[in-house]
Amino acid sequence: MSYELHPDMGLPVPGIRLASIAAGMRYTGRDDLCLLELTTTGQVAAVFTQNRFCAAPVVVARQHLALGSVRYLLINAGNANAGTGAAGEQAARDSCALVAEQVGCAPEAVLPFSTGVIGEDLSLAPIQAALPGLFAELAADAWASAAASIMTTDTRPKLCSCTLTLAGQTVTVTGMAKGSGMIHPNMATMLAFIATDAQIAGPVLQQMLHTATARSFNAISVDGDTSTNDACVLLASGASGVEIQPGTPAATQLQAAIYAVSRHLAQAIVQDGEGATKCVTIRVEQAATEQEARLVAETIAGSPLVKTALFASDPNWGRILAAVGRAPIPRLDIQALRIWLNEVCIVSGGGRDPNYTEAAGQQVLCQDEFTIRVALQQGEAATELLTCDLSYDYVRINADYRS
Amino acid sequence: MSYELHPDMGLPVPGIRLASIAAGMRYTGRDDLCLLELTTTGQVAAVFTQNRFCAAPVVVARQHLALGSVRYLLINAGNANAGTGAAGEQAARDSCALVAEQVGCAPEAVLPFSTGVIGEDLSLAPIQAALPGLFAELAADAWASAAASIMTTDTRPKLCSCTLTLAGQTVTVTGMAKGSGMIHPNMATMLAFIATDAQIAGPVLQQMLHTATARSFNAISVDGDTSTNDACVLLASGASGVEIQPGTPAATQLQAAIYAVSRHLAQAIVQDGEGATKCVTIRVEQAATEQEARLVAETIAGSPLVKTALFASDPNWGRILAAVGRAPIPRLDIQALRIWLNEVCIVSGGGRDPNYTEAAGQQVLCQDEFTIRVALQQGEAATELLTCDLSYDYVRINADYRS
Repeated sequence: MSYELHPDMGLPVPGIRLASIAAGMRYTGRDDLCLLELTTTGQVAAVFTQNRFCAAPVVVARQHLALGSVRYLLINAGNANAGTGAAGEQAARDSCALVAEQVGCAPEAVLPFSTGVIGEDLSLAPIQAALPGLFAELAADAWASAAASIMTTDTRPKLCSCTLTLAGQTVTVTGMAKGSGMIHPNMATMLAFIATDAQIAGPVLQQMLHTATARSFNAISVDGDTSTNDACVLLASGASGVEIQPGTPAATQLQAAIYAVSRHLAQAIVQDGEGATKCVTIRVEQAATEQEARLVAETIAGSPLVKTALFASDPNWGRILAAVGRAPIPRLDIQALRIWLNEVCIVSGGGRDPNYTEAAGQQVLCQDEFTIRVALQQGEAATELLTCDLSYDYVRINADYRS
Repeated sequence: MSYELHPDMGLPVPGIRLASIAAGMRYTGRDDLCLLELTTTGQVAAVFTQNRFCAAPVVVARQHLALGSVRYLLINAGNANAGTGAAGEQAARDSCALVAEQVGCAPEAVLPFSTGVIGEDLSLAPIQAALPGLFAELAADAWASAAASIMTTDTRPKLCSCTLTLAGQTVTVTGMAKGSGMIHPNMATMLAFIATDAQIAGPVLQQMLHTATARSFNAISVDGDTSTNDACVLLASGASGVEIQPGTPAATQLQAAIYAVSRHLAQAIVQDGEGATKCVTIRVEQAATEQEARLVAETIAGSPLVKTALFASDPNWGRILAAVGRAPIPRLDIQALRIWLNEVCIVSGGGRDPNYTEAAGQQVLCQDEFTIRVALQQGEAATELLTCDLSYDYVRINADYRS
């Protein structure tokens, strides 16, 4: 790869400025409101939750995005502004208007994003009070504090940068994300904001975002729940002056860098999955179609019995096989399929592989990261899904979240 | 209803004898092997797991059942004899032959059932050693000890009887079941054995079993996992001499009694759900089709975020709405749907109902049993699903199960 990955770093992206502040949206003693500014020549692409019960800011952001000319993203943590009806939608619009007032732009140039508790009214007063301070603080090197300000149940901020040289110039891609529960394809409870200083036309940028999310943010599952507020935004400021034409080697390289950042952030979300102690790749191969591979992977990743066994480092392969056995695909030959933990074959011929030993399985499951690989012997399609285990702490976090 | 329900009782059923014994299949100090004998004039109906990875005893029981003339059921707890390949199937067959040898019947007159850990070989020696003792102990009044002997992670035996008067005679229906995890439609990790002394033709009995299971054992969900070994068997000894013709009032009454026993046992399974502290009915109504109602109910029942909120007695209605929002049905109008906790309306107009108060919601959720009711305003179809909450103990039980 012709890019350099900088995990957990938030390198400045020319043409992008950020600020965060303790606005008292819900939390005390920490930043919980974030503003991101895009230079006037920038382009924006976004994908949103597929949950039919989508939050007010998602409705408003979609509408504003369709009108083009986005300049600001306003992101609050602690209140999802979801299930808040017409009043919530008005609050989302009003928050955009408040930002617009500060700089004299159109309210439609502002996209709102919210994450946190569902069903509580979004209060505008703290936003209004905080905005002058936010604008005063806007800076290119504020990714780290911005990433921290959008956290909810996250235990750590999620950041990643990538640099590459295109046309003799350095181009930067930096992203931040939040999310640790309600994570499932597609577009889990997560917000991700990725920016580059390359210069790209809007439709090309949108395509690049779709390509990057398909195998990153849309291939992770913590608990099978999908959220009302998910959004992933890709910004291109153009400030580097490096113009990217579709189909060129430069486009391929930039796409790879955007994917690398997306993948790193998606993996960070799973690693920070609520209560997660292990990060597990579910790889399903030799499937008839990619869709079938995905259904099998999702059934394994969604099984509480598999996830509690992973937590216990228990190579209880029968639970994995039972999950495959109930996957909603039309044909399945239990006798033909094989399952591995990393390189250890655990299942063949409809039961425990003859060479399998419990000690070998145990050794894999004691690791923090490993792969469960399932070969269906039905075709050539394959997919990968990242997931985590189900621990006491998942229950504690989600039973306590509102109290 | 013209029957009398005897919850948690195992009244003798003429024509049926049982025995259980501490065979050392896996446990020590408790019975773990059970034999059920049906009189020669009896009829047997059964339904089995729909998991494609089904256990050896399921394969063998299906084959033997198809040949008719069943006399004995042999049930062991602690080892599921699943994922054990050809050797496991042979072991299941051999266990039937061992029973047959004792009484000189055909091996095909014996149905094997197993529940417990997946993937360990079933040892025949303890069965062989235990059989003479089991046969010596066969008795009509042994339902309680039999119900205890088939338990695995269950914390209590599950028993129910029903009596009714048909043609001037008392007819009894008694059932026992086991299961507390891996419970999901259809035919969860559970075994259920229900017997009556009515006289019924095999096909009629099979139809009665299907009718009874549809809204009982096939309408419960603990964790969304379905098992490799599930089976529900309905036996009719005919010993009462009361002949049941299909379509008669007597058939209707007997069907109601069988359903009542099935329902009670299914409810007992959910109440004993691994780590469960609450038994929750999910009722979805005004759906376009029963199938769509069911998909919505299953999505709510399967949501870890809903289940942890139930555990916390937290009326976090946003999580319920978010689960409905991702249910895999083609149309869904979030604005039109309403959600109640018992009689408390919590959601209308796409958000919190204007009259809802947190105190009212809390009051419902603090109860051990309540109903989450969702009205979709799309049609006339409805369904009910029983489920439970997700607690620390679910994780503990399933992380520790094999250790």
